[in-house]
Amino acid sequence: MKTILLVVGKTIEKHYQDAINDYRQRTRHFIGFDIEVIPELKNTKSLSAEQQKEKEGELICKAFLPGDVIVLLDEHGKEFRSIDFAAWMEKKLANVNKRLIFVIGGPYGFSPKVYEMAHEKLSLSKMTFSHQMIRLIFVEQLYRAMTILNGGPYHHE
Amino acid sequence: MKTILLVVGKTIEKHYQDAINDYRQRTRHFIGFDIEVIPELKNTKSLSAEQQKEKEGELICKAFLPGDVIVLLDEHGKEFRSIDFAAWMEKKLANVNKRLIFVIGGPYGFSPKVYEMAHEKLSLSKMTFSHQMIRLIFVEQLYRAMTILNGGPYHHE
Repeated sequence: MKTILLVVGKTIEKHYQDAINDYRQRTRHFIGFDIEVIPELKNTKSLSAEQQKEKEGELICKAFLPGDVIVLLDEHGKEFRSIDFAAWMEKKLANVNKRLIFVIGGPYGFSPKVYEMAHEKLSLSKMTFSHQMIRLIFVEQLYRAMTILNGGPYHHE
Repeated sequence: MKTILLVVGKTIEKHYQDAINDYRQRTRHFIGFDIEVIPELKNTKSLSAEQQKEKEGELICKAFLPGDVIVLLDEHGKEFRSIDFAAWMEKKLANVNKRLIFVIGGPYGFSPKVYEMAHEKLSLSKMTFSHQMIRLIFVEQLYRAMTILNGGPYHHE
């Protein structure tokens, strides 16, 4: 199984890039993991929020392949404790044959088309975070889940 | 009113320092805000988790002044949506005369003494984050709350 984090738009700020890369590298000690970036839409000023969401949704759906297990990071998703997320990942590692794709949407959320294609929704917090922050939070949780499953000193319960 | 984030131990990694400082500066456009660092305990290897928690708790309590409103960032605390946290901050801005102190504990959580002194507990997520990450998440949420209260394009509901 390969785990992929699919995001819209590059991570711009250097300090986020560095922090995200750090966790990406550390997570790779445990599982196949990569971050795929869908280029940000251009000329969005002429688009309404709905139109932007829809166009982004089309690009997101294009990135999916048959057999992918698609999980949206979404405020309406299920909220886990870190150990429960680790247990959830353990099941996925055992059951998903191809790609496990986590998707972080654009600033206005996901289009209906993306919701239709998704298998599950997870929420990292009730709070709303910037997209750059969600990426960082997610990669830290994924790394934490791997250390929980493999027994390391990183997580204290 | 002055808002303070009280933490145990320096933020070590450069990319976290940079990200946290960025939000600290941005938040200061709206409110008096500072981060106070309690030096990390030394020689913790000879201490049990409980002993470390207790010693850290003593240092945390020493930093409090009469009149402080003390809010622990704690996994057992109330979880807010960002707009609700903003509404909560609005009330505090109107009602707290002296210092509003948010406290992030050490790796093993807070000692009973700290819980006794606290007025409220907030949780940023059901998930457990590293201490450095919690700092960053908190300052981003505080900044976001200020932009919500002051009307800015940062937050999309």
